[in-house]
Amino acid sequence: MRTRATEMFGIDLPIFAFSHCRDVVAAVSRAGGMGVLGALYFTPEELEHELTWIDEHVGGRPYGVDVVMPAMYEGADLAAANGEGLRDRLAEFIPDEHRHFVNDLLARHGVPELTHSDTAHFLLGWTDATARPQVEVALRHPIGLLANALGAPPADVVGQANACGVPVAGIAGSVRHARKQREVGVDVIVAQGTEAGGHTGDVATMVLVPEIVDAVAPAPVLAAGGIGGGRQMAAGMALGAEGVWTGSVWLATEESDTPPGSLEQILGATSRDTVRSRSLTGKPARMLRNDWTDAWEGADSPGALPMPLQFMLIADALRRVGRIRHPRLTPSPVGQIVGSLNRVKPTSQVIYEFMAEFGDTLERLNTVVRDD
Amino acid sequence: MRTRATEMFGIDLPIFAFSHCRDVVAAVSRAGGMGVLGALYFTPEELEHELTWIDEHVGGRPYGVDVVMPAMYEGADLAAANGEGLRDRLAEFIPDEHRHFVNDLLARHGVPELTHSDTAHFLLGWTDATARPQVEVALRHPIGLLANALGAPPADVVGQANACGVPVAGIAGSVRHARKQREVGVDVIVAQGTEAGGHTGDVATMVLVPEIVDAVAPAPVLAAGGIGGGRQMAAGMALGAEGVWTGSVWLATEESDTPPGSLEQILGATSRDTVRSRSLTGKPARMLRNDWTDAWEGADSPGALPMPLQFMLIADALRRVGRIRHPRLTPSPVGQIVGSLNRVKPTSQVIYEFMAEFGDTLERLNTVVRDD
Repeated sequence: MRTRATEMFGIDLPIFAFSHCRDVVAAVSRAGGMGVLGALYFTPEELEHELTWIDEHVGGRPYGVDVVMPAMYEGADLAAANGEGLRDRLAEFIPDEHRHFVNDLLARHGVPELTHSDTAHFLLGWTDATARPQVEVALRHPIGLLANALGAPPADVVGQANACGVPVAGIAGSVRHARKQREVGVDVIVAQGTEAGGHTGDVATMVLVPEIVDAVAPAPVLAAGGIGGGRQMAAGMALGAEGVWTGSVWLATEESDTPPGSLEQILGATSRDTVRSRSLTGKPARMLRNDWTDAWEGADSPGALPMPLQFMLIADALRRVGRIRHPRLTPSPVGQIVGSLNRVKPTSQVIYEFMAEFGDTLERLNTVVRDD
Repeated sequence: MRTRATEMFGIDLPIFAFSHCRDVVAAVSRAGGMGVLGALYFTPEELEHELTWIDEHVGGRPYGVDVVMPAMYEGADLAAANGEGLRDRLAEFIPDEHRHFVNDLLARHGVPELTHSDTAHFLLGWTDATARPQVEVALRHPIGLLANALGAPPADVVGQANACGVPVAGIAGSVRHARKQREVGVDVIVAQGTEAGGHTGDVATMVLVPEIVDAVAPAPVLAAGGIGGGRQMAAGMALGAEGVWTGSVWLATEESDTPPGSLEQILGATSRDTVRSRSLTGKPARMLRNDWTDAWEGADSPGALPMPLQFMLIADALRRVGRIRHPRLTPSPVGQIVGSLNRVKPTSQVIYEFMAEFGDTLERLNTVVRDD
């Protein structure tokens, strides 16, 4: 296949696959698409380790790295003014009411307390301060793409990547955000509809993609949100995209490290079983509806805190529910396409099925006019 | 063009256009698609009048009628037991708190009271009792399609239509609803995503259409929600649909009777300016976000009542705001595609642009693989 995206990135198939799992990333790239590793949960040292592994297993094919530099977050001014002690300063913004709500919720579900608190690592997961060292690490590897979620990245980061010959992709949920990304030099816009998993806006892919294509032309656009097979790939490209950006579909692959409890819920869920919730990070993110999301919607919920305070607030709670893998309290980001994930397959088979269905779809569309 | 939908209905283009305006219906059918008149707001006598007009202006081309027979509504048991006096019985379910909330809201916005109450006409807009006489009227005209929203219609109504040679379409927002429609004999499923205007579910078109296509195969499916042009038409058909079902796009046509105040708001709105709200009928319906929808989301809102009580509750209020055309208090059902409606065009031009863009899209998709 040939689109402006395959040409820009030197790949065979315009399928971009976001995953937190290095095995999926390498497998997608080896199959002709482009795997993109989500760096968020890794320290710079861990990220270095993961990327070295990918370099050794990707067979020289291009792959990407996705970081999170939110354009706006609580305490951004503090972060700029004072890198040291930022965590403690931010912690002061978390009300006791919220701490009690989280502790009570876990107590009601019988989740054991931690024997000691060890929250050093990911308290600041959603700030520019965490992402910049990740960018430094990523650019020391032969990556083919740097992606950024949650708003326009700092212009100097775009320049830094481009100087290394690495195009930058930005994920946008609205025309306004897409334009902002372009203003700071982002090369490729990922137009992501509300049906996507994780952080997402409120406009659906069907409406959003053509809007963004028209707004940022001639910049290439990838369609994201609801893309789980070849019919949806063809639809995304019919909307004007040069390729598709996918995520949820890789959670149910043999290569993925999706925890067994989460996998079971993913395989059993329908497309109606997700909800956009602020309960994980403070910004709306689509995830499986469960006791966790219901609790934050409930009448006695204090409401989620703004990013990054919400994630700081719940960090210990996540480790507590993670330790016992509590299925109904573990936030599970996934898109509405979860309804079609009913079986675990090899990554290469998913890619093959995408392409076979894409081919069938195009043939079917041509029949509509051919018999005219 | 040729799809199973064009063959079933004897039309040239698989574009179905829902409208409350007879002029739009006739214009779409004359242009080769199929106009479908929304009968909800008409008495049987008015509907007779509208359909006679269409018969005289549609040039012998097929057109359809859309009725609303909700599968579930408050008081359905009363309706079955006692057709007489149903309105008064239902009115007893409306709490005073809700009446006060509506009256206070309009008073705050300076909306004049009615000099006399004349609510006889559409109090029962959303019950089977209203829709059956509409079906009787419709089937006396040479209609080519009977459509039903809000759940599976009674099986005898499907049989009645089919006996007249009229296929029945059902609008579904989930796989479960689509299956129920098929069980009562519905011929064509309109898979309508959350981005659609009016009553709508929570699953996006991109995810919903393939799910429903697979669930009801080999029954033909039309794609609805977010369809405003040829790229979206091609996308909907790539997803497996045999054609597209549209609505919002016709509000901004020269033939439409959209009130000037509403039209202005539609032309100025972005795709982010809609909200799914229960404030009009008690069931979630997408409409422009304005003071009306905000009030029902507010902290002092008593919450919407179930169908049909909500519409009974607000009937007088709608007439009051309608009389002065209060732009910020008039509920305006429209889909997210409203963001691309920026100019009023003749209906025939909209159809032409659909087809031209569809052709360009297919050509572009073919290039992707042709250069392989």
